[in-house]
Amino acid sequence: MQISKFATPEIIFGNESLSQVGESLSRLGAKKVFLVSDSGVLNAGWAEQTIKYLQDSNLDYHLWTQVTPNPKDYEVHAGAAEYRAQECNAILGVGGGSAMDAAKAIALLGTNDGSILHYEGVDKIVRPLPPMVMLPTTAGSGSEVSQFSIIVDSERQVKMAIISKSLIPDIAIIDPQTLMTKDRRLTANTGIDALTHAIESYISLAATPLTEVLSLSAMRLISQHLRPSVASAYNLEAKQAMAMASLQAGIAFSNAILGAIHAMSHQLGGLLDTPHGEVNAILLPYVLEYNYIAAPEKYVKMAEAMGENVTGLSQHDASQLMMKAVTNLTRDLQIPVTLSELGLQPEQIDRLSQTAVQDICMATNPRDMSVDDVKALYQKAL
Amino acid sequence: MQISKFATPEIIFGNESLSQVGESLSRLGAKKVFLVSDSGVLNAGWAEQTIKYLQDSNLDYHLWTQVTPNPKDYEVHAGAAEYRAQECNAILGVGGGSAMDAAKAIALLGTNDGSILHYEGVDKIVRPLPPMVMLPTTAGSGSEVSQFSIIVDSERQVKMAIISKSLIPDIAIIDPQTLMTKDRRLTANTGIDALTHAIESYISLAATPLTEVLSLSAMRLISQHLRPSVASAYNLEAKQAMAMASLQAGIAFSNAILGAIHAMSHQLGGLLDTPHGEVNAILLPYVLEYNYIAAPEKYVKMAEAMGENVTGLSQHDASQLMMKAVTNLTRDLQIPVTLSELGLQPEQIDRLSQTAVQDICMATNPRDMSVDDVKALYQKAL
Ligand SMILES: [Fe+2]
Ligand SMILES: [Fe+2]
Repeated sequence: MQISKFATPEIIFGNESLSQVGESLSRLGAKKVFLVSDSGVLNAGWAEQTIKYLQDSNLDYHLWTQVTPNPKDYEVHAGAAEYRAQECNAILGVGGGSAMDAAKAIALLGTNDGSILHYEGVDKIVRPLPPMVMLPTTAGSGSEVSQFSIIVDSERQVKMAIISKSLIPDIAIIDPQTLMTKDRRLTANTGIDALTHAIESYISLAATPLTEVLSLSAMRLISQHLRPSVASAYNLEAKQAMAMASLQAGIAFSNAILGAIHAMSHQLGGLLDTPHGEVNAILLPYVLEYNYIAAPEKYVKMAEAMGENVTGLSQHDASQLMMKAVTNLTRDLQIPVTLSELGLQPEQIDRLSQTAVQDICMATNPRDMSVDDVKALYQKAL
Repeated sequence: MQISKFATPEIIFGNESLSQVGESLSRLGAKKVFLVSDSGVLNAGWAEQTIKYLQDSNLDYHLWTQVTPNPKDYEVHAGAAEYRAQECNAILGVGGGSAMDAAKAIALLGTNDGSILHYEGVDKIVRPLPPMVMLPTTAGSGSEVSQFSIIVDSERQVKMAIISKSLIPDIAIIDPQTLMTKDRRLTANTGIDALTHAIESYISLAATPLTEVLSLSAMRLISQHLRPSVASAYNLEAKQAMAMASLQAGIAFSNAILGAIHAMSHQLGGLLDTPHGEVNAILLPYVLEYNYIAAPEKYVKMAEAMGENVTGLSQHDASQLMMKAVTNLTRDLQIPVTLSELGLQPEQIDRLSQTAVQDICMATNPRDMSVDDVKALYQKAL
């Protein structure tokens, strides 16, 4: 038994919890809040609502929305310059994983010097970050509770994972109502991202009983509620369940880390700017099949969590049911099934495989992977 | 759906994690550590080991062990005076719930004025507390992760619940090896306390999906591992499982609060200085029976978590199995079965019932309770 560590932000969960942003930031000593958001959130009206609550708490603010999906290093640098120029002293991220990861990276550079590229890897941050509050508007990334920030190194075209306890926000505010303005494709993608977090954290070499129970619960919720959530933007019960699933999966993976799917997915995101959840969905069946021999008993538990009846089945057969349940789900949601559809060329696989084995998430994958193993998996998913 | 809040300390879990006390306190800015412990921990050698690790981190310390089971207001006042006289700036609690609750109350008075009696209830604390690290040596109280400190008002002879997010320690260090020096009675009592936390938090009116999954997991672990843990001081696998169960139940109840068993048990602890876990064990079957109609579907889930086969059973019959599983467990552990055995006199029941309905834990009990209802339950358990 190794020593394991576990940390989460303070969590505020529930409909209309968005109303607590002002109070939360005030409590943390904020005077002027750097509000990071994106155009989707802006159009949906959530940024406006957030600003109203900041004003109600007599907080000054500066709105910054120059962030794209798979946030880039130069965006972070521009944001950090603006954070300093505006003399802000706290950060609020409102949006999906991209807005929140950018917000966390800007917070990092708010108190630490140099380029964001210097902070790739584990525990490179020197000085404490400004107070951070995150409010996710997609149920997927888990960035609101995680110690990760994933930023694209635009020159190398790879995603860097920056991992540090300092990146765990002070307060995560999760308001399921904000999920009602997501389009169906984003709902499906981010839902599958959350499922991937649950699965990879569960079979991670760094999983603990504390993270495992959250991973399984997230799988249970996603199996039951992701389809209805994609089916209707107005199904609030499904939104609440998906918000909780994403939260649980986020806490689990922040503490147990991830695996080969994320290691491989990060490379594609860096190279082709592909939607993160879609890549995960495409890679899931192949990597699950590959990893199976590392933890067959865990595959049985996952099958049960996903609602499969495993009574009387062998570990092998129960595990097959689990993998089938995952494929059924992504098919039902009409997510692309090949990497070619996302623009991957066969000649790019070599390069991706070289960097994938160096991704930090590969270290906790339950089955060893060589560059050739990774190549073979990319090939299958092509 | 109401807004719910969730908070935990940073958690370090695993054999020999005790070695991290010095580093953890240094990281929090400690210079001189007020070490709260008790004679049992002292005799077992854990205080000595702890001090060695403090010294390795060049931390000054002052050892204080003047705390008794069910810690008293005057003990806390004496400790706080010594904390100030010794010019400490951080607190380390090493021991069971009593040592940790005393440590938290001393921390409270380290930065807040007046008597500990002024802080009874929810959110009465004004100023931030000094850095706190807690290292439990019993698997039960959950104080290392909770926002509770339970202190006896010696004049009124009642237990006061002090509840505040400020009372959540900064870091909880859980080293299952420390459980190997507990005697079997304490192992049984504290294990049943953890079970009671799991059950009451699960059926609490303030339960959320985040706490429910932890409550059920704790029940599962306790059903499987408490008997072997009581059977042998050297069964490290059982100690690890019970440490994890206590942790999960602690996180659950800190955020979902408790119910009538704790409300009633606190009064007995205040009046007769009875062992907390034993009182809970005696009250459990009666309060479970009373509460059943409030949440029959939850009783079925609890039956499953406790290892009962509920296939094909009605909610009523499955619930009966759950209650029987609890009684079987406390019987197997040879815990007293009546409050008379602990010294309760029939004429004291009126007084206990009056204060029990005012206990903060009563507010989240899933079934309403009048003074007469409480009286009837005390009578049954007499
Ligand atoms: Fe992800
Ligand atoms: Fe208790």
